[in-house]
Amino acid sequence: MNHIESILDAHPHHAQMASTPGFAAAITACLDCVQVCNTCADACIAENKATTLQRCIRLDLDCAAICNATATLLSRAYEPDARVLRAQLQACLAACVACAEECERHSRNMEHCRICAEVCRICERACQQVMGRLPAMAMA
Amino acid sequence: MNHIESILDAHPHHAQMASTPGFAAAITACLDCVQVCNTCADACIAENKATTLQRCIRLDLDCAAICNATATLLSRAYEPDARVLRAQLQACLAACVACAEECERHSRNMEHCRICAEVCRICERACQQVMGRLPAMAMA
Amino acid sequence: MNHIESILDAHPHHAQMASTPGFAAAITACLDCVQVCNTCADACIAENKATTLQRCIRLDLDCAAICNATATLLSRAYEPDARVLRAQLQACLAACVACAEECERHSRNMEHCRICAEVCRICERACQQVMGRLPAMAMA
Amino acid sequence: MNHIESILDAHPHHAQMASTPGFAAAITACLDCVQVCNTCADACIAENKATTLQRCIRLDLDCAAICNATATLLSRAYEPDARVLRAQLQACLAACVACAEECERHSRNMEHCRICAEVCRICERACQQVMGRLPAMAMA
Repeated sequence: MNHIESILDAHPHHAQMASTPGFAAAITACLDCVQVCNTCADACIAENKATTLQRCIRLDLDCAAICNATATLLSRAYEPDARVLRAQLQACLAACVACAEECERHSRNMEHCRICAEVCRICERACQQVMGRLPAMAMA
Repeated sequence: MNHIESILDAHPHHAQMASTPGFAAAITACLDCVQVCNTCADACIAENKATTLQRCIRLDLDCAAICNATATLLSRAYEPDARVLRAQLQACLAACVACAEECERHSRNMEHCRICAEVCRICERACQQVMGRLPAMAMA
Repeated sequence: MNHIESILDAHPHHAQMASTPGFAAAITACLDCVQVCNTCADACIAENKATTLQRCIRLDLDCAAICNATATLLSRAYEPDARVLRAQLQACLAACVACAEECERHSRNMEHCRICAEVCRICERACQQVMGRLPAMAMA
Repeated sequence: MNHIESILDAHPHHAQMASTPGFAAAITACLDCVQVCNTCADACIAENKATTLQRCIRLDLDCAAICNATATLLSRAYEPDARVLRAQLQACLAACVACAEECERHSRNMEHCRICAEVCRICERACQQVMGRLPAMAMA
């Protein structure tokens, strides 16, 4: 068990969410995505072809902001509101897909975009898995 | 013009979004909501009836995190992705409604909840207005 | 009274901080700075001379992240830890000064940098004022 | 190599920071601390002895906000400003120490506080290591 799994397990309401398979994985995927998107944006800015990467930078930064909010929500196990959690996961999914699609266009030439696309796809799948389990987990 | 309106106006792509009525207002509403929700959560924790306010604290903190991400997205005028922006505004709307509904239940006894509910409702309307103008503004 | 002043005033521990002159002003200045720095970064990316603005973009984004954390801390009135609050205000000060200095170099040619420098200087002064009152306000 | 190490390595300016030992570790430690502090705050709120945990909740949330900003700064390799980075690392250090000290007081009774204190101490050491290498890495 890593720290994320351990502390979710130690939460008084852990039965609600922490024990749900895929939950700790989604938090890890979101935090990974925050970091990788922020570094990819910075790397795109540092490239000398910044003009062709403007859309990539924008999507990287948007994806980082959204994944950050999502990780925060998922870190709370006390009585989540299913409508709010579902809507934020949907936004996270949209951001990961848009960012991955853009980064995939530059993956052959820029290793940071290749890695970023890969991590966004992992986060996309992790959000989808949590969403699939939401109705049973939290009824608004 | 306040600082938010001025800097959106000074953006090279300001025609895309900055000049859209309601845009600067939505950013201001989101930032207001971040602050008020964070203070309401802290005030709820400081009340000696924290047990009855657990759901309120959770929704306050979730709403702050989501409004924060939304304000960040709205602060960028360069080629927004309409799917991402719309999904995040939808999440913001859901968070503001859920937080307002919960705070309204305590409004009579707690002034901080009354103010928080009011500010969440302002943010809800501001997000709705921006969403109503999205299709014309940014085509994905 | 605006929303920020009202809700600080409604906090059960308001006597500790909310009533301190300059406190609500510092929160407003930090939130303003988050927004203006994020828009300035995005405007710099959209300029076609992005290469000369790389350092500006970096400092804008750093300043936004730091002011955001500072606003969050200042929004809580319950038993702040003076060492933590002081250290974060110091970081905020450093970020505002560095960002203002860099933006001032481009102020003549780019209105968004001129506005950003101005807002960073306002935030710098607001943080300094709060720091000057910290010892009396919160003893760690 | 994990994703964080890989993408820092793929950054055009990687020689500046990414290759510095301890850098990727500090980012990981900060992100871990964001998550664990947010969950510990939520767990403290869910405990029925919330009154004795008010200070713990406050420090958890402050520490999460500060570590979040620190992780963002560390994720950028392009021309960091040494004064800003050092000041933010100092704030991060102060937050981790304060939060660890408070959580350690409850470690015997609450496993989430025990884990949180442990993760804060790891983050404290990681920040200290990066600070020790700053002068060579980034001259302001």
